[in-house]
Amino acid sequence: MPVDSRFFASEGAVTLGRWAELAGADLVGDPKIEVRGVASASSAGRGDVCFFEGKPVDAAKISPDAAACLVKSEAAEHLPAGVAALICEAPKLMHARAGGEIFKVRPLVASEAFSPDAQIHDSAEISIGVVVCAGAAIGERTQIGPGTVIGPGVQIGRDCVIGSHVSIECALIGDGVKLASGVRIGQAGFGVIGGPEGAEDIPQFGRVIIQDKVTIGSNSTVDRGAFDDTIIGERTKIDNLCHIGHNVVVGRSVAIAAYGGISGSCWIGDGARLGGRAGVADHVRIGVGSSLAAGAGVFRDIPDGETWGGTPARPLRDYMREIAWLSKQTKKRKPAQ
Amino acid sequence: MPVDSRFFASEGAVTLGRWAELAGADLVGDPKIEVRGVASASSAGRGDVCFFEGKPVDAAKISPDAAACLVKSEAAEHLPAGVAALICEAPKLMHARAGGEIFKVRPLVASEAFSPDAQIHDSAEISIGVVVCAGAAIGERTQIGPGTVIGPGVQIGRDCVIGSHVSIECALIGDGVKLASGVRIGQAGFGVIGGPEGAEDIPQFGRVIIQDKVTIGSNSTVDRGAFDDTIIGERTKIDNLCHIGHNVVVGRSVAIAAYGGISGSCWIGDGARLGGRAGVADHVRIGVGSSLAAGAGVFRDIPDGETWGGTPARPLRDYMREIAWLSKQTKKRKPAQ
Amino acid sequence: MPVDSRFFASEGAVTLGRWAELAGADLVGDPKIEVRGVASASSAGRGDVCFFEGKPVDAAKISPDAAACLVKSEAAEHLPAGVAALICEAPKLMHARAGGEIFKVRPLVASEAFSPDAQIHDSAEISIGVVVCAGAAIGERTQIGPGTVIGPGVQIGRDCVIGSHVSIECALIGDGVKLASGVRIGQAGFGVIGGPEGAEDIPQFGRVIIQDKVTIGSNSTVDRGAFDDTIIGERTKIDNLCHIGHNVVVGRSVAIAAYGGISGSCWIGDGARLGGRAGVADHVRIGVGSSLAAGAGVFRDIPDGETWGGTPARPLRDYMREIAWLSKQTKKRKPAQ
Repeated sequence: MPVDSRFFASEGAVTLGRWAELAGADLVGDPKIEVRGVASASSAGRGDVCFFEGKPVDAAKISPDAAACLVKSEAAEHLPAGVAALICEAPKLMHARAGGEIFKVRPLVASEAFSPDAQIHDSAEISIGVVVCAGAAIGERTQIGPGTVIGPGVQIGRDCVIGSHVSIECALIGDGVKLASGVRIGQAGFGVIGGPEGAEDIPQFGRVIIQDKVTIGSNSTVDRGAFDDTIIGERTKIDNLCHIGHNVVVGRSVAIAAYGGISGSCWIGDGARLGGRAGVADHVRIGVGSSLAAGAGVFRDIPDGETWGGTPARPLRDYMREIAWLSKQTKKRKPAQ
Repeated sequence: MPVDSRFFASEGAVTLGRWAELAGADLVGDPKIEVRGVASASSAGRGDVCFFEGKPVDAAKISPDAAACLVKSEAAEHLPAGVAALICEAPKLMHARAGGEIFKVRPLVASEAFSPDAQIHDSAEISIGVVVCAGAAIGERTQIGPGTVIGPGVQIGRDCVIGSHVSIECALIGDGVKLASGVRIGQAGFGVIGGPEGAEDIPQFGRVIIQDKVTIGSNSTVDRGAFDDTIIGERTKIDNLCHIGHNVVVGRSVAIAAYGGISGSCWIGDGARLGGRAGVADHVRIGVGSSLAAGAGVFRDIPDGETWGGTPARPLRDYMREIAWLSKQTKKRKPAQ
Repeated sequence: MPVDSRFFASEGAVTLGRWAELAGADLVGDPKIEVRGVASASSAGRGDVCFFEGKPVDAAKISPDAAACLVKSEAAEHLPAGVAALICEAPKLMHARAGGEIFKVRPLVASEAFSPDAQIHDSAEISIGVVVCAGAAIGERTQIGPGTVIGPGVQIGRDCVIGSHVSIECALIGDGVKLASGVRIGQAGFGVIGGPEGAEDIPQFGRVIIQDKVTIGSNSTVDRGAFDDTIIGERTKIDNLCHIGHNVVVGRSVAIAAYGGISGSCWIGDGARLGGRAGVADHVRIGVGSSLAAGAGVFRDIPDGETWGGTPARPLRDYMREIAWLSKQTKKRKPAQ
């Protein structure tokens, strides 16, 4: 996906030559080709630079739309035709490091309350202490509580009610959205990679899209995507202290109770209902209209319309039967001891 | 319960006629009767408007004190004498929508740091960046950290220590209360109802009452009640990142460790102790002096003085026996395989 | 450990005589001896005052370096030679109360944005709404987002990126540290003691030390130590909504996913990896390079390099075998029913 220039700045032309230089990579391709995005190997589109670390022959399966791919030398020859090779020893690490040098998130730093480059509708009610950074826009009748910070380039629609001490970065917010006090939208998702000196952060180049009439409770956090967007669908309702990880796609009219935690790249179907403290491991699909019992810990996909519980989660009926059976076994044995 | 006018505003007279109009309901009763509260069917008091969606004959069991009740037509005739009927197709949904139109929470929006209508004692220490809204009052010697927001009508007692970036709405706070940085008090509880276009928020008309010498840790949240109040009893100590849902009543000298999550309408007895990450499902009673092991997930009432653990929680002794038995069974089988 | 005067203030000379007076204790020792620290009985160093409530004869085992110890009368004679006795009825309670009177945390209250006693490097980028209290220092090129509060005496290194609405108290922060919006560093840890009138807070006299290149996600909290320091090692990466309790020592390049909760006085080895919602009970040791599965609840030490899961946590292989066996047992029985 192209990196959104409203949220990320790049200096000068972004070319394959510059990638090669910053990644310390040998380029097999034209150094003058301009690129504009970063991506994973499977979803790379036109103009995107991705990386590959699997078996050399599997390099043939990466997206043929990619402009270039950081690979180890033995995999370079297997790349699809038209994908330039950036050959280096540690493709994932160098992809993170070079990407982070090329595209820098516009910092959440401001020396004035309202940037002259921000657009605030006359009918919006903006409290004392609010900061609106350059390039941001706030729509009609939207109310913003004291001390809230609207980061560079953030777009907020009409009739939103945003509490105090909210921070919003790298995000597009629809109409009628309610964000309670202390909500954090669009900060870097959690990505860690081991480098030669120890753990390093993987930079995060995506955005957060919040559709109309979403409500998010106090002190909840929604991270921006790594390469793609984190999306919260229309009318979805999220309670306090919830966490939505990077690249998650939440459908419409989903209800997530307190402490609901959705790990990176999950997909949550329309109308799903998550009980309190339900957690979902990364890359899991929660079916349309399905339900998770409070405290469920989900490690694999849940079909549409089912109710699961327990950790690791299984169909709630199975889980309850197991709990009951276990209780019966241990109670039976007591007198015999 | 009457809606507290310090926290909620209503335009003009609030009459049964207006309820009928806003709910699109047929009124069987006097449209000029003035009402002042909203409630559930079981706890409605004088002047309250409630709703009922159960079996028609059970409408006879609703509180006879209610001024009026939104009901489906087939249940209207069963209402107790003296309770006016507001007949409509979707009583709960229309109760939420009309109630939300009639009583609007005073917004957490402010254009000046200290409202001239706020009362701040001379001996209080109020930091830079603090916002105190209209109708709020702050007592003797109370300290408030930078950037904290005291919403409309909020009353805070003496000798409190309130950190930075705290937000307080719809709340009455006693003496000697400590709220660490990032605490959120009195935001809307989590109520969702399905409407014809998808999920809708259920408005929340209650308050938060925090008694003397309560301590609440960083980034914890205490939601205001839906119809009644959320109450935290004297000397109760709450750790970081805890969540207290709407209508919860917590007793005195209760200790709740980090991530303790109490769902709506629970009752927690005096002196109870909740280990880290203990969770309690809605409408559950935790007995006086009882204890929950870390990570317990409680789905039913716990008698006074008992110690429970596990998810779903059971007496800790039973739970530990089950865990040990299960471990033994699977270890025994290993050599036989 | 000596109480750090950058973060805590004491009035006048702190002598054993004053401790005796405030604790209502009988002193067996020289009242003019000056002391400067508070500690637990096992770790007390020179100049520290500790307390002891165990079996009288075990008083002989307390640290012989302690300057004085609050004890019940029957234990006083067993104290090591050179440790003065402060004899009282409730040593732990009186240690908390007297210590809290003697050493008071410098309050997070400020009447101006930048104290003239703060040192802010010219190259630091400090946003609007930031508050920097007396004695604080901020290093080269460090960026601080709007509304963040740097408490009295806090030291922050070079090249840090600190988001909006962060609060930092009682802390020493290294170079290249990233703290996302809403992070809370250095607030009082959770300590509760039963007094004659009910629960009381135990004052917390330690600090937080955050080493170079640590990253901490949105709305996470790191409490200061009770007597010692809470330490986060170099390059450790912590996700959103995590909680690190008092006196915890986290090693280097540790990764803690969202909702990771570490209770007081735990020790986490270098390179450990904690999945989402992993929780660790107090005083537990997590081995170097070990891993916790998402949702693990750990109640005892984990050896180096192992992977554990479940609640209570056991080796992941055992846990998975138990889950599979339980499922098989209950499924087998179904047809027979």
